[in-house]
Amino acid sequence: MFKIESRDKESNARAGILTTHHGDIPTPIFIPVGTGGTVKGILQRDLTEEIDAKIILANTYHLYLRPGTDIIKAAGGLHKFMSWDLPILTDSGGYQVFSLSGNRKLTEKGAIFKSHIDGSEHIFTPENTIDIQRIIGADIMMVLDECAPFPCDHKYAAKSVKLTHHWLDRAVERFRTTEPLWGAEQVLFPIVQGGIFDDLRKISAEKTARADMAGNAIGGLSVGEPADEMYRTIEIVNEILPEDKPRYLMGVGTPVNILEAIERGVDMFDCVMPTRNGRNGMLFTSEGIINIKNNKWNDDFSPIDPSAPSEVSINYSKAYLRHLIISGEILGSQISSIHNLAFYLCLIREAREKIITGNFKIWKESMIKKLSARL
Amino acid sequence: MFKIESRDKESNARAGILTTHHGDIPTPIFIPVGTGGTVKGILQRDLTEEIDAKIILANTYHLYLRPGTDIIKAAGGLHKFMSWDLPILTDSGGYQVFSLSGNRKLTEKGAIFKSHIDGSEHIFTPENTIDIQRIIGADIMMVLDECAPFPCDHKYAAKSVKLTHHWLDRAVERFRTTEPLWGAEQVLFPIVQGGIFDDLRKISAEKTARADMAGNAIGGLSVGEPADEMYRTIEIVNEILPEDKPRYLMGVGTPVNILEAIERGVDMFDCVMPTRNGRNGMLFTSEGIINIKNNKWNDDFSPIDPSAPSEVSINYSKAYLRHLIISGEILGSQISSIHNLAFYLCLIREAREKIITGNFKIWKESMIKKLSARL
Repeated sequence: MFKIESRDKESNARAGILTTHHGDIPTPIFIPVGTGGTVKGILQRDLTEEIDAKIILANTYHLYLRPGTDIIKAAGGLHKFMSWDLPILTDSGGYQVFSLSGNRKLTEKGAIFKSHIDGSEHIFTPENTIDIQRIIGADIMMVLDECAPFPCDHKYAAKSVKLTHHWLDRAVERFRTTEPLWGAEQVLFPIVQGGIFDDLRKISAEKTARADMAGNAIGGLSVGEPADEMYRTIEIVNEILPEDKPRYLMGVGTPVNILEAIERGVDMFDCVMPTRNGRNGMLFTSEGIINIKNNKWNDDFSPIDPSAPSEVSINYSKAYLRHLIISGEILGSQISSIHNLAFYLCLIREAREKIITGNFKIWKESMIKKLSARL
Repeated sequence: MFKIESRDKESNARAGILTTHHGDIPTPIFIPVGTGGTVKGILQRDLTEEIDAKIILANTYHLYLRPGTDIIKAAGGLHKFMSWDLPILTDSGGYQVFSLSGNRKLTEKGAIFKSHIDGSEHIFTPENTIDIQRIIGADIMMVLDECAPFPCDHKYAAKSVKLTHHWLDRAVERFRTTEPLWGAEQVLFPIVQGGIFDDLRKISAEKTARADMAGNAIGGLSVGEPADEMYRTIEIVNEILPEDKPRYLMGVGTPVNILEAIERGVDMFDCVMPTRNGRNGMLFTSEGIINIKNNKWNDDFSPIDPSAPSEVSINYSKAYLRHLIISGEILGSQISSIHNLAFYLCLIREAREKIITGNFKIWKESMIKKLSARL
């Protein structure tokens, strides 16, 4: 399912191909976030034609609450429901239970939570989140985990890892004893937790590796810890996670975070940043980061990004996009989201090419300076 | 500039071509509303490729307030600012002064109003609205008028018509003594007012016809009066407006309104209905009108409209669109707006074909039944 095509000689970066029923995914890859069965503001056609997305992420928590599993089941799975033919990865919903729902309660059995939409009470268990992801028909499913907050003390983190590992065993058991519903293969990724505690991360990485699934994820990072702590944790975890399976760093991050993690052997990423920050006027460009709301772009009629990651990046000017965002126009969100995602996908394609041609490291160092600049 | 290609033998409907610097416009035509330099929720590319729009409308009031004429002038006109190469018609802003701004005050000189954005005070005169539309670079400009409310008494309507006619003379004078800024030809349309009072409408149509401009508009309809009153008023006005110039019915309306007005000799239409109502989940389809929020579409996985006015109409199901609209997802607004506008443009293209092939009337009667159905 995962084949490494090329390894960087100067770092742990690698270029591979992840094979799924709905298509091959070149790695490293960035996964646009399509929480409720839509990448906000972008037509599915533009995800492929403008952004060249190879896989999108959907969210079990959101889809379970709305439209609900009955509707998705009646539609024949999420691919059919949302008219998307390429691979889908689903987050288990654990993170959303902790970040969005009120009065959540963790028990050994599972996470009891109240819907952020109507306050109704629900429970997510390691087993039912597999069942829901079977109905969704995700190519890559995630186990239910607890994403510990930052900061948290060692005692809390240790208890949290223990619960996550207990849930992992049960999720794997449910995964092994059930079948896909829609004739497509589904795989399950376990998630390494442990905050920024090296001992817990090692224990969790070992447990995760032993589960012997098709790929492994690193969760609980980019939750407020310093970037250096994140990078060190990735190094510790990736020393343990099997080298021949894809490694997915959840919810990360800035373009710089992504290049640093690729260098440390990570293959897959997702983050709301390009879309959410884009809707608020933050643009990632080949020349640096732009806050399009700033007055200085008022009469700047140059293209959004002359490196042209997508058609909208050169068809529209900074001044026009500023006008749209300042005016609260939907089209501002659309253009920013398409541009930012196209920029992310373009960057990660370039990283892959550099790994294959053997000059990743020098390219990465030069890019990091540019990507950090604030224009 | 306007050439009638075909006349319906059983009604006053006609098919023509309106020539502008930015392209030929087949008539009858529907003009998507792009108030602030954007048709809400739709990329310019999709206006042409998905909707087949031949001309869009922008609004003087909105563009004057934001981004402001300085920015549009620095950009080299609205076409360049918003990356749109086809014709643009600008409303004068009179209607918006009356509907959006607080503390407006009408004087013979012009309309004094407060910005709905920041409360700042401004004045629109027949002259400066021409100047602003010169800067915008609209292919078709509109005179400043007063759109009287409905209901209003004869005395008010008569006074309002008098003011509108006074402004018309001054607007025409400014139009004749100024030149386009961006090398493109610009024309000016006067506007017939007079509420639903036949005598006032006749006087206003005669005054408007005497201005001898490239085309003429009918304003002040679809503001709350019964549809029959609107149709009767159109008949009275169109008996007077010159037959060899395009007739533009402003702000109208439903698909049925449009077919009725085409039958009575109207050539051009604009309305926010397909986009605004679309964003709220109202869909115009070949089978009738749909309120997509209704529970009945919950698990209806058939295409939005099998007659496929646009790609999104068949790529996405009613149940998926319902999910998006109910969830407040931007994509719901995008799909509804593209579909509804494509439906309007498709309907009007078909009306044009039927006029040319000589079976408009029978087709229109059959369509009106379908278009009025609520599914």
